[in-house]
Amino acid sequence: MKQNIYDNDIFFQGYQQLRATESGLNAALEEPALYALLPALSGLDILDLGCGTGKFCRLAAATAATVTGADISQKMLQEAIRQTKAANVTYICAPTEELTFAQQRFNLVVSSLALHYIANYQQVVTNVFQWLQPGGQFIFSVEHPMCTAMHHAQWQTDEAGNILHWPVDNYQEETIRHTTWFVENVIKYHRTTATYVNTLIQAGFRIAGLHEPLPVKEYLEQRPSLVRECRRPPFLLLAATKPSI
Amino acid sequence: MKQNIYDNDIFFQGYQQLRATESGLNAALEEPALYALLPALSGLDILDLGCGTGKFCRLAAATAATVTGADISQKMLQEAIRQTKAANVTYICAPTEELTFAQQRFNLVVSSLALHYIANYQQVVTNVFQWLQPGGQFIFSVEHPMCTAMHHAQWQTDEAGNILHWPVDNYQEETIRHTTWFVENVIKYHRTTATYVNTLIQAGFRIAGLHEPLPVKEYLEQRPSLVRECRRPPFLLLAATKPSI
Repeated sequence: MKQNIYDNDIFFQGYQQLRATESGLNAALEEPALYALLPALSGLDILDLGCGTGKFCRLAAATAATVTGADISQKMLQEAIRQTKAANVTYICAPTEELTFAQQRFNLVVSSLALHYIANYQQVVTNVFQWLQPGGQFIFSVEHPMCTAMHHAQWQTDEAGNILHWPVDNYQEETIRHTTWFVENVIKYHRTTATYVNTLIQAGFRIAGLHEPLPVKEYLEQRPSLVRECRRPPFLLLAATKPSI
Repeated sequence: MKQNIYDNDIFFQGYQQLRATESGLNAALEEPALYALLPALSGLDILDLGCGTGKFCRLAAATAATVTGADISQKMLQEAIRQTKAANVTYICAPTEELTFAQQRFNLVVSSLALHYIANYQQVVTNVFQWLQPGGQFIFSVEHPMCTAMHHAQWQTDEAGNILHWPVDNYQEETIRHTTWFVENVIKYHRTTATYVNTLIQAGFRIAGLHEPLPVKEYLEQRPSLVRECRRPPFLLLAATKPSI
């Protein structure tokens, strides 16, 4: 059975609160970096894998031709539907690995911090390649392999609580990591940067960019604690293109 | 002035001994991984950037059309020339950043653990792109950015000397790192994985593979201490192709 933490009540409440206050790293770092990689969305057919409450779907719907948001969580999608007015957005409730599209093809597939929850990354990459039009792009973010490598990794501090460094271990063990995020035993799948990149290439993609973004300057000024995110990269972003042939 | 540690007598002696005994990580990990990425060398014109004592040049000379080895160190090249009998090998003593080739073009440019000593990686990448024939490949290894990030990084151990983890810090600071390797104050240039990859793409290369190799099994069995090299990747390897147009 696929993991679906987002339909856990405690998780959902914690997550909603995090996103509402923008106190997470998403607004300060991941979203600006992901959005900066996107092509002009005008007229595109877009798929968002792990769309959550539909923030990106609504943003894209203003200019895109169509937006399809897919997520495993009914709770997330209920909230997405409640907030979405645009008629060109469709939501699908399904695990990413089990999505199928018979005829529908996309110009852009986006995924924000979802693929490290997916057991079979290779299958998803193969599927996305098939669903993309020639020349289409697959752009996604994941937790950085440097951060998912060690089991229960935390900043190492001295006795006064000052950060010393970030610990890396078990980097080559591409297996499950158990972690606590609002609730206990959230499962992630650690993969190396090499696996993230080479699986794309083997599926036929061309790598257009690999990014390990820094916090955006305005957020760094507002929240000096973000400085630690310059000490190790929290996220890995990849942009890949299906060749036009 | 370019750094030339290899012409320091103490360094050179230590380095020669390391290579003679194969007790370093090169034979167990870096060389097999780099060689596995190479195309068939038969009939190729090959350039080796930072060729040292010419080990790869001699190996390649058996099948390649021509091999050009370049290194900043006269001592290294004297040893390379002494050991090299093949007539199709040419050695050039020059810093990598200052190499120029008016007419000569290559099918393959290789560089083994040299580019993290080079201040201007972007210039080298631009030059290599120009020196390659269309369809030619640039394949190189560097110390992994995870390993060069923290100043004076060492395995973190408990009181009994057991390894706890590898420390990462200052990842986003793409500046000089001072280190001790046989002699004090060896200078390296830390760059992020993103910079290694995106500089290639921006120069016009296509990424053919990104690798974070494990020790070869036979060496792991002979030297159990190599197990720690599975806990963090010591080297980053990149293979890039100049499109045939």
